[in-house]
Amino acid sequence: MASTEHPGGPAFLFDLDGTLIDSVYQHVLAWREALDQVGISLSVWKIHRRIGMSGGLFVTALARELAQSLDPETLTRLPSLHADAYIRLFDSVEPLPGAAELLGTLSEHGVPWAIATSGSERYARPALELLGLADDTPLITRDQVRYAKPDPDLFLTAAERIGVEIRDGIVVGDSVWDLLAARRARSLGIGLLSGGYGREELIYSGAFRVYEDPRDLLAHLDEVGVRRPL
Amino acid sequence: MASTEHPGGPAFLFDLDGTLIDSVYQHVLAWREALDQVGISLSVWKIHRRIGMSGGLFVTALARELAQSLDPETLTRLPSLHADAYIRLFDSVEPLPGAAELLGTLSEHGVPWAIATSGSERYARPALELLGLADDTPLITRDQVRYAKPDPDLFLTAAERIGVEIRDGIVVGDSVWDLLAARRARSLGIGLLSGGYGREELIYSGAFRVYEDPRDLLAHLDEVGVRRPL
Repeated sequence: MASTEHPGGPAFLFDLDGTLIDSVYQHVLAWREALDQVGISLSVWKIHRRIGMSGGLFVTALARELAQSLDPETLTRLPSLHADAYIRLFDSVEPLPGAAELLGTLSEHGVPWAIATSGSERYARPALELLGLADDTPLITRDQVRYAKPDPDLFLTAAERIGVEIRDGIVVGDSVWDLLAARRARSLGIGLLSGGYGREELIYSGAFRVYEDPRDLLAHLDEVGVRRPL
Repeated sequence: MASTEHPGGPAFLFDLDGTLIDSVYQHVLAWREALDQVGISLSVWKIHRRIGMSGGLFVTALARELAQSLDPETLTRLPSLHADAYIRLFDSVEPLPGAAELLGTLSEHGVPWAIATSGSERYARPALELLGLADDTPLITRDQVRYAKPDPDLFLTAAERIGVEIRDGIVVGDSVWDLLAARRARSLGIGLLSGGYGREELIYSGAFRVYEDPRDLLAHLDEVGVRRPL
């Protein structure tokens, strides 16, 4: 029987912010600060709804929202102003409940996994330490692909890095952008509420299952194809 | 014909935080700071989902969430620690787009309205100034009723204050707690996305219409029973 007819065991492709670490609200504030610095006022909930997508697309969406043209120099400066502000807030970021235990359990049972984030290496790297993960943890960041989420490139590259077929991949993310990217990659998507999106938003974006946070997913691994010896 | 058979014109009962001013994320951070101060760690999204409900119920929900008993003294201190932290963050709070214009338009057309908030007088009062409203604006705060949202008391008291029947009331709020209180009061409820809840969460909680923010509601007043001369 050709191996293409039966999928292999599942492999998990994790988003980082709002999925493994509790950093979404710090990103929201960091974007707000960056926008303030260039004289742009945008309601905070609209910033929240854009977290997790590529910084470039964020800025494009922003320009549409404002219905005013922004000079290219300002647009180019925004992502690094945001990164600076986020790094200043990083001290208040904590791992989400169950994150380290979930990753540890997957490793223990030989289930492959990787992390794929629209964020840059500069502030994704310190998150590994926060989670108690080794430096050689498979981590794909914005800098390593042409297009970030909702394009599927980050998850495709992550699957390749750990040597699994993307059709066996299960994307785990807190945002609509993770789930859209999962569908475009033809992976399954699991939504987590821990980034502050509502359950229904995640389902409408294609989540095949929604859990509260990593701890809740860990408690229900059997629902998504991970067999654990009793 | 008895006046009870035909409702009067609509009267609007507004929530404040996330509905007229862009303050939800500051409240989230203020609660997080207050909890930190008493040694409690809670994921930020869970705090966000409780904003707008009574401080007392927030603390009860928290105790359930933590599955640990908190000493009564700590529980009693939390609301004032939150208020202190919020007041420190108040400088970064702005009116939501269209808020002042919406209230001005209603007044211009003789449509009665009031503000009813689960927040305390201490930090609701400065919001009037932020919105450019007069000191005698009808404002019902936590201090004036026995139970805050999702109990209906705030909206019932607000309707009474401006001399309208609650059945003619249209509650406008950004949170599930506003909409639950509206249903318990037998008012209609309009949901606004500007507090960061998702559209579906608001619909499932009983919103009969959902708009983005006050500006969007202003543009659609004809959908909710306000007739304006052309």
